[in-house]
Amino acid sequence: MPYFDHNATTPLLPVAREAWLRAVDEAWQNPSSPYREAARVRIRLDSARERFAQFLGCKPKLLVFNSGATEGANDVFRHWARATDPSLRVAISPTEHPCVLEAAKESMGARLAWLETTAAGVVKLDALDRLLGQETLAGVVTMAANNETGVLQPWSEIAQRCRARGVPFFCDATQWLGKLPASRLSEVDWVIGSAHKFGGPKGVGFLKLPAGAEGFHGLRGGEQEHAHRGGTENFPGISAMLAALAEAEEKKVFLEMQRLAWREAFERDLGARIPGVVVVAKTAERLWNTVSLLMPHTENHRWVARLEKSGFQVSTGSACATGKNGPSHVLAAMGLDAIEAKRTVRVSAGWETTEEDWRGLLDAFAKVAIELQPAATQVIQP
Amino acid sequence: MPYFDHNATTPLLPVAREAWLRAVDEAWQNPSSPYREAARVRIRLDSARERFAQFLGCKPKLLVFNSGATEGANDVFRHWARATDPSLRVAISPTEHPCVLEAAKESMGARLAWLETTAAGVVKLDALDRLLGQETLAGVVTMAANNETGVLQPWSEIAQRCRARGVPFFCDATQWLGKLPASRLSEVDWVIGSAHKFGGPKGVGFLKLPAGAEGFHGLRGGEQEHAHRGGTENFPGISAMLAALAEAEEKKVFLEMQRLAWREAFERDLGARIPGVVVVAKTAERLWNTVSLLMPHTENHRWVARLEKSGFQVSTGSACATGKNGPSHVLAAMGLDAIEAKRTVRVSAGWETTEEDWRGLLDAFAKVAIELQPAATQVIQP
Repeated sequence: MPYFDHNATTPLLPVAREAWLRAVDEAWQNPSSPYREAARVRIRLDSARERFAQFLGCKPKLLVFNSGATEGANDVFRHWARATDPSLRVAISPTEHPCVLEAAKESMGARLAWLETTAAGVVKLDALDRLLGQETLAGVVTMAANNETGVLQPWSEIAQRCRARGVPFFCDATQWLGKLPASRLSEVDWVIGSAHKFGGPKGVGFLKLPAGAEGFHGLRGGEQEHAHRGGTENFPGISAMLAALAEAEEKKVFLEMQRLAWREAFERDLGARIPGVVVVAKTAERLWNTVSLLMPHTENHRWVARLEKSGFQVSTGSACATGKNGPSHVLAAMGLDAIEAKRTVRVSAGWETTEEDWRGLLDAFAKVAIELQPAATQVIQP
Repeated sequence: MPYFDHNATTPLLPVAREAWLRAVDEAWQNPSSPYREAARVRIRLDSARERFAQFLGCKPKLLVFNSGATEGANDVFRHWARATDPSLRVAISPTEHPCVLEAAKESMGARLAWLETTAAGVVKLDALDRLLGQETLAGVVTMAANNETGVLQPWSEIAQRCRARGVPFFCDATQWLGKLPASRLSEVDWVIGSAHKFGGPKGVGFLKLPAGAEGFHGLRGGEQEHAHRGGTENFPGISAMLAALAEAEEKKVFLEMQRLAWREAFERDLGARIPGVVVVAKTAERLWNTVSLLMPHTENHRWVARLEKSGFQVSTGSACATGKNGPSHVLAAMGLDAIEAKRTVRVSAGWETTEEDWRGLLDAFAKVAIELQPAATQVIQP
């Protein structure tokens, strides 16, 4: 069944599976143990860190392997709460993932200032410039790509501006990594990501520190991860995460334009076949894999169920927000009301998604649109 | 090569490996996603939680799956820092694992009071009784079994005393689980553990909450784990952890007495063959798998290297403390000086360790003792 929910999670890539199995078979020892087989695990871990750092264009010792982006986000804000001047504010985009938003609220509280965004949810650079001119900020926070809409933030431009002012910039690259090239993320001070969003295993991710963040610590415990995070290193998970990122970087990310064309064709044709459907943030630069659709009628759960019956797995929005009542904060920040937000359907493709899958999804949407058409409208159908 | 460093980490059990692979093949979807295959992952996750909770004798909703004991320990103390009266102290054993000690120091600071222990590092119950009579404590903290010496704490008795006084009791069961029966841990309010210490994968563990800890939260983010911990659930890891614990509980832990006899025979025979060797905490109740040896001469790294050449992997002590300078705080708390601590060798068996492995290790120790014997002593050898 074509899977269009890659922003929620991805299947494990064969290369990641192999790397994991090789590690649990050959390199399962504790890298801190004092015999040679353990030292070999340490060497393999160091080498994985070097290679992962190369993809991000950073120094290996700035990488902290952890359990995922949620841990990373919590740790960044806890560190900022300890290490920054409490009178300074932190400017944050309102469309961040819950792991960034909730962690920021917990550690920063009243110190948070909302960044101005366009109707598409894109941070306004001129407004940021004004803010940076008006006050000294303790930090700026924007994601690289939005999990619900695919909207790309001008994170490289934001990074330049922050660097010019000496303001730390934290960028959640969870949805960017594996879909678009990682190398320029070295421009960002603090970066987080999760392996399972790009074909790696669940429960493993990373935090990239800025140079000079030697005082940073996440979990207290042993002296692992250059004393930045306690806990026995999950080398099988790290090794599998690296294999997944390497495959994306070396074999996939340059196919972006072709995949973008498939998404654009889908959006264009869907508009022609379902009158009234709206592509959320249509005019914004967006990930090649993501479309957030505001359907012209019927709650999103019914669309999802019907599409599943037609053989396509799509989503109502962020899986991380599913447990919550009320509309998505991302869509609310973009000006959608609660009723509209409940009509949004998220489609997120993967590298294994074919042009035929997109066409099949289009046909399924068109069929379901007729099935779900409100009775009043159906009467006037030919 | 017989592996005698199970307290550092364990090889992945075949049942855990199978459970992980089954999950990444069949149940890799995000359990929060809105289609049926994802709902089936949710059902499997719920069912894993129920079965894991049965082994611990607790309600499933009190289990928080996380990245391991280090995360659990950090979260317990952060919660206590938020939720307890700051004028009350927390009594803690001085021989805790670094993840408990360092997390406690960070969140509790000057609120920590050291529990009195015997020379073997066992918490003195009469001293605890006096302390509980003298002051209201915010919490009591002792591990179930020590990672360096194998010494068992009277945690069930401590749990009873704390319950009688209404004082929260936190017990790190990392080295207990999978070696001894888990069921009575339900007597303890807060319990932590790590899968990779009992044949499960690295990067996954759990925290058991007490009833009434609804306000607890670890990582902020999505509403996963009954809103106690954000982050996409690592179902493959959880499923593998459960498989490993189930195998230990159903097929292994009742073999404890036989395995204890092998350890005791090793200790007795080693004493006969290496004059002057001391079993640390010899008279204390200890795990069936662990022996901490104070060698009569020569730094422990040289023992470890020679034993490895003879085909046996043993350790100098806690892998988590390897990065640190200075002697082990556990051995220091037991009265060993820095020079003695540098002569300690830790032996920790697993369920797959045979009686022949123990005998082979004994012979290897005896051989290495002769090889490493200081020159002055060698002269007077016959």
